[in-house]
Amino acid sequence: MRYLIKFSYDGSAYSGFQSQKGLETIQEKMEDALTKINNGKKTNLVATGRTDKGVHALCQYGHADIDVNITEKKLKRAMNSNLPDDIHVIETKVVSDTFHARYNVKSKTYQYIINTNEYNPLERNYVFQYNYKLDVDKMKEAIKYFIGEHDFRSFVTDNKDKENCIRKINKAVIKEDHGKVIITFTGNGFLRYQVRNMVGLLIKIGEGKIEPKEVKEIILKKDRTKASKTAPAEGLYLVEVRYKTM
Amino acid sequence: MRYLIKFSYDGSAYSGFQSQKGLETIQEKMEDALTKINNGKKTNLVATGRTDKGVHALCQYGHADIDVNITEKKLKRAMNSNLPDDIHVIETKVVSDTFHARYNVKSKTYQYIINTNEYNPLERNYVFQYNYKLDVDKMKEAIKYFIGEHDFRSFVTDNKDKENCIRKINKAVIKEDHGKVIITFTGNGFLRYQVRNMVGLLIKIGEGKIEPKEVKEIILKKDRTKASKTAPAEGLYLVEVRYKTM
Repeated sequence: MRYLIKFSYDGSAYSGFQSQKGLETIQEKMEDALTKINNGKKTNLVATGRTDKGVHALCQYGHADIDVNITEKKLKRAMNSNLPDDIHVIETKVVSDTFHARYNVKSKTYQYIINTNEYNPLERNYVFQYNYKLDVDKMKEAIKYFIGEHDFRSFVTDNKDKENCIRKINKAVIKEDHGKVIITFTGNGFLRYQVRNMVGLLIKIGEGKIEPKEVKEIILKKDRTKASKTAPAEGLYLVEVRYKTM
Repeated sequence: MRYLIKFSYDGSAYSGFQSQKGLETIQEKMEDALTKINNGKKTNLVATGRTDKGVHALCQYGHADIDVNITEKKLKRAMNSNLPDDIHVIETKVVSDTFHARYNVKSKTYQYIINTNEYNPLERNYVFQYNYKLDVDKMKEAIKYFIGEHDFRSFVTDNKDKENCIRKINKAVIKEDHGKVIITFTGNGFLRYQVRNMVGLLIKIGEGKIEPKEVKEIILKKDRTKASKTAPAEGLYLVEVRYKTM
């Protein structure tokens, strides 16, 4: 039976989502729990997508095929009792054998949190601490240029595969909430480091070093060296995933 | 010169505030940083009060006598560069030599957060996770009985010293915010575990096991065995301290 599993995690202690030999990853912890439940039969988890080292997820999905007969509720409970306390299964659902947690994705939403207040030690792994002023109005003006279908080559780090970099961003919003700047992107998919690279550019704009309208030119240049540095991982969250069919 | 130091910390990794041989404590980390700045001369920090293992502080104060000539701003910076990232100095201020960080306290405010939503792995050290329904209206009715001057003997754990347990609570409020129950107490001082023991009783009331009006009787009994168990440390924060004179 194929199960779609909705889960969340604190990425602070992990070398990212995807399994890597000799490193602690979220995928490994999830698959260890699944394998145990599936009577020791090595069980894979196919996730919506990877998240990098230090990035968090409030809503991540993956599918897994489990042979043992188990209800959705019991699978949730069994997963959580076999997972460390920084990874949590929110919900499980039986899906058809043709459902695919990556291919069936309609949209993903990422959120990035910048803290411009005094440093708070409780949030050290959960926000990007920025100790200077940001011109949020300029950032709001700039973020609009990301909306739509573009070739995001200028925002990809490590594009060794020379993959297709055309992606569509449906929604891009900046909100200010008591000294926190919250940047939200919804799109049909994101390239490696794309969100953190877009945020890096928005920060440069907030600093007044680049004008908002230059975003358009930077996108068109399709050259990573033209954009800004990557914003740190700890401020990034995968917050929502939508599927075409369930 | 005497400095009053305002600081915050994530209590998760520490065996409480107060120095204890062989254990990691917040006081030890603060005093190590102070001693380093004070040219190696062993420097003590006299804090507003202790917090227990796992308890957090968004606003804690302590005073220290420093011989070296250093501005308030530089002391803040020097402290933060010598502290681990889960302890943070917010502000420092030169005070008179007679100022005392504990004796001069006018009021302290503690907050306790109960999460009744789905477990969030990012908040695992910062809220008490409660997976059942709470009748918050009953809790609101009950909390009023704590206001005023009372002998809080029924809410003290480990009262070996047979100390005076009379304390005054000025303000006691419960708010609900998107599935979080936030309990705030302001008073002239709190006994060991008092807040967590009062919260423990409020939870029992929220569960419907005790009626709100029974709080009055439990206080009057002056017997710890009559109240409820201690709520866990991770939900508790010291959030404000006020002084009579600065």
